[in-house]
Amino acid sequence: MRKISESTVRRLSLYLRFLEQSEQQGHTTISSEELARRGGTTSAQIRKDLSFFGSFGKRGLGYSVPELAHRIREILGLERAYRVILVGAGKIGGALVHYEGFRQRGFHVAAIYDRDPKKIGSRRNGLVVRDIKHIETDLKKEPSDIAIVVTPAAAAQDVVDRMVRGGVKAILNFAPVQLSVPRDVAVKTVNMALELETLSYSLANR
Amino acid sequence: MRKISESTVRRLSLYLRFLEQSEQQGHTTISSEELARRGGTTSAQIRKDLSFFGSFGKRGLGYSVPELAHRIREILGLERAYRVILVGAGKIGGALVHYEGFRQRGFHVAAIYDRDPKKIGSRRNGLVVRDIKHIETDLKKEPSDIAIVVTPAAAAQDVVDRMVRGGVKAILNFAPVQLSVPRDVAVKTVNMALELETLSYSLANR
Repeated sequence: MRKISESTVRRLSLYLRFLEQSEQQGHTTISSEELARRGGTTSAQIRKDLSFFGSFGKRGLGYSVPELAHRIREILGLERAYRVILVGAGKIGGALVHYEGFRQRGFHVAAIYDRDPKKIGSRRNGLVVRDIKHIETDLKKEPSDIAIVVTPAAAAQDVVDRMVRGGVKAILNFAPVQLSVPRDVAVKTVNMALELETLSYSLANR
Repeated sequence: MRKISESTVRRLSLYLRFLEQSEQQGHTTISSEELARRGGTTSAQIRKDLSFFGSFGKRGLGYSVPELAHRIREILGLERAYRVILVGAGKIGGALVHYEGFRQRGFHVAAIYDRDPKKIGSRRNGLVVRDIKHIETDLKKEPSDIAIVVTPAAAAQDVVDRMVRGGVKAILNFAPVQLSVPRDVAVKTVNMALELETLSYSLANR
């Protein structure tokens, strides 16, 4: 399959949400116009996005909701569950452990780490906070593909190096720092202050 | 000034971070190569990004760190502070109130709202949780340009309608829902499960 852009992947995620809502409401087909309306895009864009993955839908009948949802889950790698580890048991980390949206999509936070002796041994959503120094040996015993990093900026690279040695292949990074990883490891950085800056830019340039 | 893309705005935010770090380390100039290396981009891209806003830098001397930082702050609307309100005093909302990164960039969370009587009146980082039903009258007295929405999906649109009537012009939305707003209101949606899905996509399509 050829490489598709991140914005296409993001739109596929959104389409999947609407398809699942339609499924819950008992609909079996959906038109590209309806999907477009709900996703804030155009039906031409939807047809283009889906064309990457073969042919879907029947002219005049729309898309089969369960079939399209299944195919998008397959494309996004969501037909399986993921064991996720989280590093950083502070306020944001503690909140993310409770985040329902992860589990609903098959991302199971199975372990949480910190280096603060005051946090190690305490619980977050039923998980005992583990000592970061055991992360590599833990990962050998219980492999995880995905890790979430919610440490302070200065601690993040060291944590990531350990995780990569432990076999982690994808990292969701909330630390405000550019991470170095080997080529075969995917990193997605979420910087919440930066999101606000795109808003202050819109306010300043209206 | 002509409209620049969101990806340019995001890169400007990153450049600003590196410039501020350089400033703290006592550097007065920085080359586009160094800025590119730290931002994970190319010096050609940096020159292109900055060319939107007039001419910067001297050939062979690089950019003046304080001058460029000042200019980017101006472009991003960061020469002023913003009063920010936050709706949703759950775990994520409670964690965001404490988030240092916002205050550092001049985003001051000044009020927090919820509709749950058990939360109203309790405190988050020193702020008393207010009743959502007062948000419009509060906004008339204490205007805010920016709001952060951390409610469940089903509650978000109603909250946003109230805020827009109260004069809010920019919304950072963490609720997993597409919001309808008037044309002059900017919305930026952060969907954390969706960020993980871009990672599961990379894992599934390596």
